[in-house]
Formats: sequence, C-alpha cells, structure tokens
Amino acid sequence: MRTPVAERRPQSFERVLSSMCTEPHPAARAAADRFLTSNPGDPATYGEIGDIEADVVDALGDLAGLSEPNGYVASGGTEANIQAMHAARNLAETAEPNVVTPTSAHFSFHKAAELLGVELRTVPTDADHRADVDAVTAAVDEDTALVVGVAGSTEYGRVDPIPALADVAADAGARFHVDAAWGGYYLPFSGHDWGFADADVDTLTVDPHKAGRAVVPSGGILAREQETLDALAVETPYLETQSQATLTGTRSGAGVAAAAAAMEALWPDGYREEYERAASLADWLAAELRGRGCRVVDPELPLVAFELPEAAFSAVREAGWRLARTGAGEARVVVMPHVTREMLTAFLADLDAHLD
Amino acid sequence: MRTPVAERRPQSFERVLSSMCTEPHPAARAAADRFLTSNPGDPATYGEIGDIEADVVDALGDLAGLSEPNGYVASGGTEANIQAMHAARNLAETAEPNVVTPTSAHFSFHKAAELLGVELRTVPTDADHRADVDAVTAAVDEDTALVVGVAGSTEYGRVDPIPALADVAADAGARFHVDAAWGGYYLPFSGHDWGFADADVDTLTVDPHKAGRAVVPSGGILAREQETLDALAVETPYLETQSQATLTGTRSGAGVAAAAAAMEALWPDGYREEYERAASLADWLAAELRGRGCRVVDPELPLVAFELPEAAFSAVREAGWRLARTGAGEARVVVMPHVTREMLTAFLADLDAHLD
Repeated sequence: MRTPVAERRPQSFERVLSSMCTEPHPAARAAADRFLTSNPGDPATYGEIGDIEADVVDALGDLAGLSEPNGYVASGGTEANIQAMHAARNLAETAEPNVVTPTSAHFSFHKAAELLGVELRTVPTDADHRADVDAVTAAVDEDTALVVGVAGSTEYGRVDPIPALADVAADAGARFHVDAAWGGYYLPFSGHDWGFADADVDTLTVDPHKAGRAVVPSGGILAREQETLDALAVETPYLETQSQATLTGTRSGAGVAAAAAAMEALWPDGYREEYERAASLADWLAAELRGRGCRVVDPELPLVAFELPEAAFSAVREAGWRLARTGAGEARVVVMPHVTREMLTAFLADLDAHLD
Repeated sequence: MRTPVAERRPQSFERVLSSMCTEPHPAARAAADRFLTSNPGDPATYGEIGDIEADVVDALGDLAGLSEPNGYVASGGTEANIQAMHAARNLAETAEPNVVTPTSAHFSFHKAAELLGVELRTVPTDADHRADVDAVTAAVDEDTALVVGVAGSTEYGRVDPIPALADVAADAGARFHVDAAWGGYYLPFSGHDWGFADADVDTLTVDPHKAGRAVVPSGGILAREQETLDALAVETPYLETQSQATLTGTRSGAGVAAAAAAMEALWPDGYREEYERAASLADWLAAELRGRGCRVVDPELPLVAFELPEAAFSAVREAGWRLARTGAGEARVVVMPHVTREMLTAFLADLDAHLD
C-alpha cells in the first residue's frame, strides 16, 4: 500500500454534515462484530444469521406498516431500488416497460433503468420539490410498469404525496414503489402517510444503515406480496438453496445483525426521540440560517438545504466541514444522529467568518 | 426480535468445510473496525477510504498481473461478474448479445444474464470439469459479447484453459472475463496461466473476502482498459461525484480497509504459504478419502469433491459439520485458511463412524 493502513485515519463524524450514514448504535456495532464472519447468503452453513434476517424483515414490516412482510436485508438502498424495478419489469405484461419517477428520485433509479433496460421517465417536481401528481399522471401510460414515490428525498428531504401517487399507479395498472431509504426511520413518527398501511404500496426501500443506526451494508427491501420475491428469484444449483432473490451472493452478517440489534435497542422509542431531536434541530438551524440572510428551503424531514455563496462553501470545506450540494447548487445539511447543536453552532461560527 | 440478538450465537468456523469465506486476518479485522463507518461510495465526504480503495485496486493488479489496473472494490464476486457482463453488453455492437460460459461458471452469471437481458449460453464441461474449448468455440458466434473462463470453479476448484479461451474470444471479436473470485489468491503460486499477464483478459473477478482473508463485503473487479469502467458509469447529480460505475451506492469502508490490511500483511509470502499449506492438506484429504473407498475428484486447487452416501452426509451434518454438495451430488470440502489437519482428522473420524 502507498500508505500503511494503520497510518490511515478514518473520517471522524465531527464535521460531517453531508452524509445519510451515521455512527452505529453501540449495540449494533457489537452485534456487527459478533456476526462479522456469518454469511446470510449461505443459510445452510450459517443458520443463525438467516433467522436473524427473518427477524429484521419482520421488524421492518412493523416499521413500514406491513404485517406479513416479504423482503430481505440488501446491500443498501441502491440494491433495494434496483430490485423493486427489476420485479416490476419481470412482472410487467408489456414488452417495453417504462418507470415513472419524480426528478427528485435517487440516482439509483437511473442505474437500475440502465441495467435493466427499461425506459425511465423522470417528471419535474413541483415548486416545493415534491412529486407533481398531475405531471406524473400525464407521464404514465399503459406500458408503465412502476411508479415511484419518494419518502424523504436525497436533496431536500421531501415526502411525496404517497397515497395520491399510489392511486395513479393503480389506475394505470402499474406497481408502486416507495423509496424511504433515509426517511423510513423518521416517518413512523412524523405524521406523514408513507407506508404500506397508508397506501397501495407494492414495494418499499428502507435502510437500517442510514437513520437506523446499523452498520453498512444494511439496506432493506420490503414487498407486500411473495410474488415480488418470486419474480426476482434465480435458480441456484449450489449451496443447498434453490433460488436467490438477492443481487449479491455472499452477504454481510455484520449488517444483518447490526440492523437487528439497532431495532431492538431503538424501536420505537429511541427512533421517535431521535426524530423529535433531529426535527427540532433542523428547524433551529433553518431559523439560524435565515437570520443570517440565507434563503432556506423549509425542512420537512431533518435535512436543511440553503443558498450559500461559493466562497463560503469552499471556506467551510477548507475548515473541515463536509457539506453536500444539491443539483441546483444549494448547500445541504443532513441532521443525522451524530449531528448535535454544538456541532451546528461551531459550523455557524465558521460560516459567520465567511458570510457577507 | 423473536430471540434477542445477544442470545444468538454466530456460526463458529470449527466445523465449516462448505464455505469459500473464512476467518479474517487479525489486521484485516482491526482495519475493518477502524473504517466501519467510512463510505467509499461518498469519497467527497470520506476521502481517506477512497485512497485506500485505490491502493487495493493497485495491489489486486499486482496479484492478477496487471500493471495499470482499472477497477474497484465491489460488494462481492456476484457484483463483479454482473458488472463484467454489464460492460460487455454495453460495449457490444450487436443488438442481441450473448455470453458464453462453461456450465461450471458461478450462478452469478445466471443472475447477471437475467438482470441484463442477455442470452446466456452454458457449455458442458469436459470429463475433468473444465471448459471444453472446442465446445465453447462452437457456441460462440458474431453476437457473442463475452466469453467467460473460470479460474477456480465453485464446485470442483477447476482452472479452465484460460489462454485458449481468451483466443476463442479474441477470434470472435468478443471480450473475455476470468472469474477468479476464489482462486485468485492461490493462482499466483500454483503455476497456472490465469491472469492478465498470461492471456488476453479484459476483466477479472477476485474476492478479498474469500481466500484473501479480508471481511465481507470485499469483492474485486479489475479491467485492463478504462473503457470498461466508462461503460458502467452512470451520471449522478449528487454527492459531488460525476458518475459511479458501481452496482451499489453506499459501500463498506470495512471491506475496503480489510482488503488493504490483509494484502499488506499477506502478499505475497503469507498467501504463498497458505496456498502451499492448503494444497498439501487437500492432497492429504483426497488420499485419506480414497483410502476409505470414496471416489475423489483429484484436487487441482484446495477443494476436494468426493462421493459420499446420503446417510453418511446426513450423519456428519447432524454432527455439526457444514459440508456442501455439488450439483452431481458429491460432497465438497473447501480447504480454507481456517481448515486444519486437526479439523479434517476429526471430520474423518466422524465419517468413519458412518461409512460402510
């Protein structure tokens, strides 16, 4: 190695405002360590982790309002979104399926469409960065296999009108997928209609390794019907299993065990408290930024996007802050569990040094 | 959770003879722990792990005989194989690409073909479980985008005639991929012609989390040409990166750091010693089994397949041994780093109790 690994210093979370990942819960970290060498992709060898995975899927079902969930712990939200589109393609009756998403949908849908050979129709969001139901309706046709609603968008933390979009899908005979990769651990507490109990949702993505405080890799795909997983299954002659619905082969026991341990420790009260803390902190940050003359996109979930001059952006980055940009150029802070009032106060102080 | 995670017991490796995964090297485990929360999918936030990943790709290039490797650390061999087929599909000039593999190819190629919408032509292996070059040649045509050679097959540990297969691909204007997911950490020492320096190989899979003694998830895809990764890249407006060639989004820093640390500790001498130990042990096991009247497939790499009556198979499984089966029904032992002479002696003793 050019530099010995022992001399490499991992990124501390102290100044990370850009990431939808966070510090794992201590119980999750401990469980990850214990199950580091278990492979859920080989349940005939590693039986215990297979059982834990089933528990995680049930727990995610509780979270997302589905009493008999089908699903698995994926490598992340990208795999979950790919597999949702994959199932829709395979179940579609048309030879030329298309998928309709708002432009706010995560770019994993672009990856998925390219991979799967389906047409992706992205529909501009409304003025408040949410899916525009009328425009989505206009984009849907008889070849539409899947409509996607985002519940906690990457750039603005927006929650689409999920029940209305589900109706659009149903009217067109298309399936409906909700991407709650990040939002899913807040939405049980935020009052939104977002999940299987609120709308005619076929599949849903929710990632324990984001706000769930598990470890990477730990994504989740849930499906209302067994048919979805059946549409993904590929026969395997090996390893004593008959078929696999996953996009990977060997999988991480650490991710599965961590997801279980985090849910055990935090569902529902710990996650509720975190939602309330983070939402309150996001509102505080938004007010502080407005007070400094920055235009702020009013937060809906714990994510704050705001206009920031390029010079200030570069300066805070130089000072070690990790801050992302939206496609439109705004700065974006994700108020993850490791983001505290103290951190944001320090951030604002650094910002003040560079704002006009 | 139905059972508290703390009460769940991870599978010990003491009796695992079925897995191509193994105990991580201690330095790899430590590095995994340090970089557990770094995400190589977001190098703008997590810069250090991005640099480590570049080091790993270079080290894998050394291992596989490629001096200026292109590639990345994938979720595993399945992703690497999917992406190799994906690049071939995207670069193919035909509208109806096909991919030709021996029947011994890992089922990830089946997953990949179904996902990517390409025709998979599997060609029966010869009597010694290797690719039959003449039969592969007959299966290839002007629409063939990719030919696959296996360097360490899943069921029998066979190494295909890689240079001959590369020539078949070249003659047909097709790309050539080598799947050395498991074999890659033995083949630098075994005398085979298998890698980029030995043949006209376009892409290659080699997994640090198998015989490399890293942690899951840590697969590797290498490509001779930048064009391969370019063919995989999907534009992203987020996270300050322009494109991503990976199948996942968020990725595991633990896997990348562990791959680096393992290579640092073990390349080349540690891996060479392990190859020699495991090969010798496989030969010993084969002789012991033959001495007991079992028909044994002569090992080529450290994997022993042998005929075992169903009753004996069930009995040793009852005794806690994890043993896999080939599609043809033989038992299969993979002589991974955690498999010792003592373990195999105990296994043979349990077997003796149940053999006629």
